[in-house]
Amino acid sequence: MSIKVESANVSINDEYLKAERERAAHAYKDLQTGDIHMTGWVSLPDEISDEKLDAINAAADRIKADSDYLIVVGIGGSFLGACSVIDMLDKGRGVKVLFAGHGFDPVELDETLKEAEGGDYSCCVISKSGGTAEIISTFGIVRERMLERYGREETAKRTYVITGADGYLSDLAKAEGMITFGIPDDIGGRYSVFTDGGLLPIAAAGIDIKALIGGAKKARKEDFDAEDSFDYAIMRQLLNEGTASQDGTEKTAEIYEFYDRKLVMFGEWLKQLFGESEGKEGKGIIPMSLLFSRDLHSMGQFLQQGSPIFYETMIRQEEDPEADFTVPDFVPQPFAGMKLSRIERSMETGVTNAHVSAGTPVITIYFNKLDEDSVGEMLYWFKVQCAVSVLLLGVDPFNQPGVEAYKSEMRKAL
Amino acid sequence: MSIKVESANVSINDEYLKAERERAAHAYKDLQTGDIHMTGWVSLPDEISDEKLDAINAAADRIKADSDYLIVVGIGGSFLGACSVIDMLDKGRGVKVLFAGHGFDPVELDETLKEAEGGDYSCCVISKSGGTAEIISTFGIVRERMLERYGREETAKRTYVITGADGYLSDLAKAEGMITFGIPDDIGGRYSVFTDGGLLPIAAAGIDIKALIGGAKKARKEDFDAEDSFDYAIMRQLLNEGTASQDGTEKTAEIYEFYDRKLVMFGEWLKQLFGESEGKEGKGIIPMSLLFSRDLHSMGQFLQQGSPIFYETMIRQEEDPEADFTVPDFVPQPFAGMKLSRIERSMETGVTNAHVSAGTPVITIYFNKLDEDSVGEMLYWFKVQCAVSVLLLGVDPFNQPGVEAYKSEMRKAL
Repeated sequence: MSIKVESANVSINDEYLKAERERAAHAYKDLQTGDIHMTGWVSLPDEISDEKLDAINAAADRIKADSDYLIVVGIGGSFLGACSVIDMLDKGRGVKVLFAGHGFDPVELDETLKEAEGGDYSCCVISKSGGTAEIISTFGIVRERMLERYGREETAKRTYVITGADGYLSDLAKAEGMITFGIPDDIGGRYSVFTDGGLLPIAAAGIDIKALIGGAKKARKEDFDAEDSFDYAIMRQLLNEGTASQDGTEKTAEIYEFYDRKLVMFGEWLKQLFGESEGKEGKGIIPMSLLFSRDLHSMGQFLQQGSPIFYETMIRQEEDPEADFTVPDFVPQPFAGMKLSRIERSMETGVTNAHVSAGTPVITIYFNKLDEDSVGEMLYWFKVQCAVSVLLLGVDPFNQPGVEAYKSEMRKAL
Repeated sequence: MSIKVESANVSINDEYLKAERERAAHAYKDLQTGDIHMTGWVSLPDEISDEKLDAINAAADRIKADSDYLIVVGIGGSFLGACSVIDMLDKGRGVKVLFAGHGFDPVELDETLKEAEGGDYSCCVISKSGGTAEIISTFGIVRERMLERYGREETAKRTYVITGADGYLSDLAKAEGMITFGIPDDIGGRYSVFTDGGLLPIAAAGIDIKALIGGAKKARKEDFDAEDSFDYAIMRQLLNEGTASQDGTEKTAEIYEFYDRKLVMFGEWLKQLFGESEGKEGKGIIPMSLLFSRDLHSMGQFLQQGSPIFYETMIRQEEDPEADFTVPDFVPQPFAGMKLSRIERSMETGVTNAHVSAGTPVITIYFNKLDEDSVGEMLYWFKVQCAVSVLLLGVDPFNQPGVEAYKSEMRKAL
């Protein structure tokens, strides 16, 4: 098992912890029976066939052969999953993946199109309903540019449609003969990183999707059968209800903290996973994320002495980074002659000690390193922890009844 | 006055509001007497001389003449001020400014150095004490590279040192004859965007610093003499204490919301400004930021129906963006034939209406457009609002007694 969880300033009564561990093990069992709706993602890593992965890799190879860029038009889970994996694992072995459609900003779209048009490009459009406003507006604009440049037949060959069985995108793909992939009905956007919509962009970036799925399989096999497997899921709920913090305060915010810029979008993915799974019925812990040491020089004061309404969840990597520098000898002590990575590690230790001394609950989650195996494991591990944690709260982790409100107000305003 | 504030679901008793407005006007007056420590930033826009701005512009012109890139080694306020202004206003009229030193990540530094070494470059190092760990480590590594490439004399000419009167950087600059700018003793990092450390990188990016300062002067002259000038500062405190929210709940988180990716770093600047000014003595509202519509597809569910521990502060631009697209006619209704900017505006209205309907307190701050004048005004306006708001809370907005804790723990770990 390569994911390790430590905690400080979290105190739970032994009896209570035992009972919660039993409830968590039950919740995990329930996830696997198929009795809960929208749990297709639970067994997906073991059920996805080699043929399916080969088909995705074949489409990715075609993109790599005829394109320098892939414009992915997706939003929410159809953006954050692939984007966070690519940020963590991209080694430049595939095409450059550009993300569009996660908003209506014309200036950003203009820049994206200009970059793609500096070479050859393909487009992958992802929308389950086929009607998401940002997606069909943006995809329309991209498609118009492709039609001008490549003509109708070639545009169809360069367009990869990932959508549900019906709707505008499905109809268009059929009419034009575009390569189509599906989105399972029983997997929601925030749990969809291992579906076609996540895997095709990841494979096009040159990342080994079989190894990524392998990491998820390993998590499923090894990470959830110990007595303390769900302690992260349990601690966050008890911190929220105020029974696990030493001062008895209810912790209303969870701060995910990273030490590597490559994990920033993974932080956004975690925010969607937990925020959208848990934030309903007037409940939920509000998720935030920070990048250290950068944000210690802005939010460090608040973390050390501000209102104690939060706990911290640090995500730390065990292996050292691939590049390194030695600080030159002409720099003052104690830094002269030191590896940058060693100073960084001391900063990690220093931050933990300082925040623990301040009495803040600090949960630390260690992963091995930024490779397909560890990242696949981590994504799956967090999905399970999230679902179990939200089930412990007594909330449905798999619906999102509030997301239509602004869309219907927006249509009124149009 | 071009900054406008609106609010919904914020209800304050008339008498109470009147009393708070008087307290706020007093606090603003106190800021200007010079009796409060670290308030050099208050009169700075009117006191900065044309000669000083000319000297900064002359240094910037020299950088533009001999460099393609400027590596700015800064962290905290010496990074976020310049970086947010450049993100908002960069039109490619100067050198490309690369930021380093806001962390110890060797992989990120490697990428930055590779980019700069693709052309000619200069370096601007910013540290008041001259001893910040991230800064002197990173600057040492950059300097070693410059010495290899340019030799000692040319490296000195290409190095711009912005520091206090004493310390390693000050000594080095004197020994090598480097161009040096100062950091006033009575201005803290988060209030320092209009000092040399902010202005030199901004000017090197080709942004008109006189117009930027002009916006700040205008704010000082026009924005703070109406009865309701400090209502934003007041509302946030009363929302936090629970007297201004309709359900009586204490709002512990402020979510800054933006509709333009160019404002994302400005959101980071706001987080430092408010978080570091207010987060002490166990007090303070925790600041977060979101980018819409992107983050509506991740955090929208929580905002609509999650735990009501937050209020929203939307930052909206009145003028339309410079680029635009028309959605092609082949896209389904209601989007076909519509300008992307118009759909975006409808989304802004839709989000506001949906969140107001949910009962969330929503404060909307309108600024004119992304030009020097408006951005200068906005930066100054928020600094004043922050200082007044934190004074209303009875906390010193200008110290940061907690920031040494992790640094001393880090030195122990080294």
